[in-house]
Amino acid sequence: MSTTNLLKGKKGIIFGALDEHSIAWKTAEQVHTHGGEFVLTNAPIAMRMGTINTLAEKTNATIIPADATNLEDLQKLVDESQEKLGGKLDFVLHSIGMSVNVRKGRHYTDQKYDWTEKGWDVSALSFHKVMQTLYKSDAMNEWGSIVGLTYIAAQRVFPDYNDMADNKAYLESIARSFGYFFGRDKKVRVNTISQSPTPTTAGKGVKGFDDFISYAEKMSPLGNATAGDCADYIVSLFSDLTKRVTLQNLFHDGGFSNMGVSQAVIEGFSE
Amino acid sequence: MSTTNLLKGKKGIIFGALDEHSIAWKTAEQVHTHGGEFVLTNAPIAMRMGTINTLAEKTNATIIPADATNLEDLQKLVDESQEKLGGKLDFVLHSIGMSVNVRKGRHYTDQKYDWTEKGWDVSALSFHKVMQTLYKSDAMNEWGSIVGLTYIAAQRVFPDYNDMADNKAYLESIARSFGYFFGRDKKVRVNTISQSPTPTTAGKGVKGFDDFISYAEKMSPLGNATAGDCADYIVSLFSDLTKRVTLQNLFHDGGFSNMGVSQAVIEGFSE
Amino acid sequence: MSTTNLLKGKKGIIFGALDEHSIAWKTAEQVHTHGGEFVLTNAPIAMRMGTINTLAEKTNATIIPADATNLEDLQKLVDESQEKLGGKLDFVLHSIGMSVNVRKGRHYTDQKYDWTEKGWDVSALSFHKVMQTLYKSDAMNEWGSIVGLTYIAAQRVFPDYNDMADNKAYLESIARSFGYFFGRDKKVRVNTISQSPTPTTAGKGVKGFDDFISYAEKMSPLGNATAGDCADYIVSLFSDLTKRVTLQNLFHDGGFSNMGVSQAVIEGFSE
Amino acid sequence: MSTTNLLKGKKGIIFGALDEHSIAWKTAEQVHTHGGEFVLTNAPIAMRMGTINTLAEKTNATIIPADATNLEDLQKLVDESQEKLGGKLDFVLHSIGMSVNVRKGRHYTDQKYDWTEKGWDVSALSFHKVMQTLYKSDAMNEWGSIVGLTYIAAQRVFPDYNDMADNKAYLESIARSFGYFFGRDKKVRVNTISQSPTPTTAGKGVKGFDDFISYAEKMSPLGNATAGDCADYIVSLFSDLTKRVTLQNLFHDGGFSNMGVSQAVIEGFSE
Repeated sequence: MSTTNLLKGKKGIIFGALDEHSIAWKTAEQVHTHGGEFVLTNAPIAMRMGTINTLAEKTNATIIPADATNLEDLQKLVDESQEKLGGKLDFVLHSIGMSVNVRKGRHYTDQKYDWTEKGWDVSALSFHKVMQTLYKSDAMNEWGSIVGLTYIAAQRVFPDYNDMADNKAYLESIARSFGYFFGRDKKVRVNTISQSPTPTTAGKGVKGFDDFISYAEKMSPLGNATAGDCADYIVSLFSDLTKRVTLQNLFHDGGFSNMGVSQAVIEGFSE
Repeated sequence: MSTTNLLKGKKGIIFGALDEHSIAWKTAEQVHTHGGEFVLTNAPIAMRMGTINTLAEKTNATIIPADATNLEDLQKLVDESQEKLGGKLDFVLHSIGMSVNVRKGRHYTDQKYDWTEKGWDVSALSFHKVMQTLYKSDAMNEWGSIVGLTYIAAQRVFPDYNDMADNKAYLESIARSFGYFFGRDKKVRVNTISQSPTPTTAGKGVKGFDDFISYAEKMSPLGNATAGDCADYIVSLFSDLTKRVTLQNLFHDGGFSNMGVSQAVIEGFSE
Repeated sequence: MSTTNLLKGKKGIIFGALDEHSIAWKTAEQVHTHGGEFVLTNAPIAMRMGTINTLAEKTNATIIPADATNLEDLQKLVDESQEKLGGKLDFVLHSIGMSVNVRKGRHYTDQKYDWTEKGWDVSALSFHKVMQTLYKSDAMNEWGSIVGLTYIAAQRVFPDYNDMADNKAYLESIARSFGYFFGRDKKVRVNTISQSPTPTTAGKGVKGFDDFISYAEKMSPLGNATAGDCADYIVSLFSDLTKRVTLQNLFHDGGFSNMGVSQAVIEGFSE
Repeated sequence: MSTTNLLKGKKGIIFGALDEHSIAWKTAEQVHTHGGEFVLTNAPIAMRMGTINTLAEKTNATIIPADATNLEDLQKLVDESQEKLGGKLDFVLHSIGMSVNVRKGRHYTDQKYDWTEKGWDVSALSFHKVMQTLYKSDAMNEWGSIVGLTYIAAQRVFPDYNDMADNKAYLESIARSFGYFFGRDKKVRVNTISQSPTPTTAGKGVKGFDDFISYAEKMSPLGNATAGDCADYIVSLFSDLTKRVTLQNLFHDGGFSNMGVSQAVIEGFSE
């Protein structure tokens, strides 16, 4: 899509750009195309693995490392971002998730609870910490937009998604709970996007992911939404076209969420 | 919002612009601002009451009257629209609703079923008729977007909304059912927008509407979404930013739909 | 399950017992086992095909034919049932559904709208007609229970379910809309049960039904709920154990409704 | 309700009976009435405050203290319960919840995250710990039933419910996630009941609770469900009448969950 100036003059923070497959990476590219300016951030440990400098140069962005579970890091990020961008923020993307139980191959019925707690803190509570820091610092402009990324496992069972399902349910609840106060007090909207399974570097860590991608593709009337599609959708949610959309969990998935079964899927059961 | 060319080159049909308070009227204005071209349509009887000519001039649109419950009218509309606009369609807005039981003050527990059937045909089945005509005529371009307007009474009880609640539930179901085939076969998306109560000429017909507007305003963290806000949101759904969003019922309501109770509402109960 | 007297002293009407595969048939047997008394009813034309007399004898019930789309028939049914049973009613089961488009093999994108209207009247509006007749006749005892049967196609797409999906959405909306007034004014609860696909004589009419049964079985952690299971569940909803459950759509489906994908289903995609 | 033998021969564990206002307390009484046998458990610290001995005598139950966040305590509880009751378990009620942020008056936008973590562990993760212990010990009989208590704040905003909203969202997700494995592997059902606001000793701790009770009463067509009603409903979910109901969040609330607004509530806005 060509430039539209849809986000001209808007400033923000984008969490979670790891590499060119990341939704956050694509979002940074698209927000830049539509005229927005931003700070890129990621956990120090994640950034060493990524190639975020390339993205920063391409999008004229500043990088400020921050561990999203650490309140001091977040305060520093919010303060420095406003300094750097010259004012309050208009948009924030939270694209962070990680389950230690998944990484270490621990089954959902055999959780190691220290790991469960760590994954919950990183994947879910961090969204609250980011918002609490923004709210208490009064760092958002009126009619600003905060978006978190989630997955339909928060509503329905996908066996291999493990404890990330519960983390996403908690994350979506935070969007509603904090969205009320952010809306009422600061006129800021808060939503989550429930995205198709996406072959990001993180997504690929989930067991049986390729089969699942193929299943979701066959189930969805418009096919799976890609990372690039998601970036476009996030642009619409950061723009002024969606000023009164808040507290919502928005499915961006080619229609998967409202399918019971597709012709293409049922055919596998009819030999 | 200034022009963005977001809809440049896109063509469509807008149903239901009655007067300057209509969501369809505002949508026509905003689609025009963003570069889209369209045909305006309404029932012949409704058009005599409105001032649709003014809108047509302002937005450089053609008017083609059509009763949305009449298959011949719809076929003519779809054929002539493509001729006039010089090609297939990219967007369609269905903004039509009317309950005879509501108009004549008939209580939900005392329906006159001829009237119930008439309201269902106009408010709900017409959405199917429009889509069936478009589908069978192969009148939509790939990645086109069809939007219907609905209300949260389809999910929850609003006593004065009467049989329109059931009509809206049927309408939303059509969006999913037809959306599957339109997505799979034509790559067209179909969604409904569940809009805040809006003081349109139609909306005002509902009993106790002003009290309800005030209640919804107090309940919604961002306040009620206006007709103008809705027009902006429809622009985002007609644009390429939302290509993979389909089969969804999208709440555009300042957050009302996910509120249990707000501080402002509960305070009325705490003397 | 052995007798419990759970429904002792309770009286009601059961619509839709066609033959021994019907959910209504099993319900009649179970309600009888638990001590309830009732009138059996069905459309005159359906009864000629069935063997409802056997059921009536077995359950000590009276048969009163009634076309559920005909207000006079319904009034007669409600009046005579109270006479026969010696008082007001405690429970009503609405188990009625039929789509002419399905029967005649008409695709969802090629509806014959006269047939759509007929199916809507029989499958959906009849639920309103039944309740309006009961309500206006003040025929229900306080804490009575009205149950309608529905299917998850009201929420999600099952391509072969055709216009029955939209009819069920309308039916579920009626349950909420009328449930409010029936609850507030008469202390009667109204709910729908969203049942697993069930190989009744009616269910078998849907194209590809056997494949679908097998798909649903593989998706559901507890397997498909049978007609007999559903009868048990209805007993619980007619009993005093569920007095404050109202306006709900209750999934009775072995868990299908909250599954995204099961291990058993995904395995078909992993060769 | 008189005895029915509905739970005759069934054995289980009931968590969370604090005093005679508790839902768990009423449940114990009702389960006993219907013929079930059980172990009562609560955190050692909670039990010192309560009068659980009275209940145990009345219902012929054994008390085994256990901190539901402590895996050793839970293992001991599950082992000893089976010994005491003479076999595997048929039902388990999890009725546990506590937020330190609520107790200490900490606003949702100003959380102390150590407290958030503590509340999450007690109110939400404990449900996983209980089920993981039962699952790994193979302690449940086939067609057993596990129930957790929750609140609609998991879906919609109730400002004073604070971080308990997010905890309940996590708890409900656990019910689905674990319910899949428990269903598939052990034929055990797992559901949550979303109960009306209930003036238990715990509930009363929430700010503005009395106003809220009155609001919910006015909104619900059948009025708020009481603790006693909830006990009855739990009996139905422990019984064989509901064998195929699983992975569900069941609203037991007099209809509140599907109300948009009631006549009684809107009247407060119409002076």
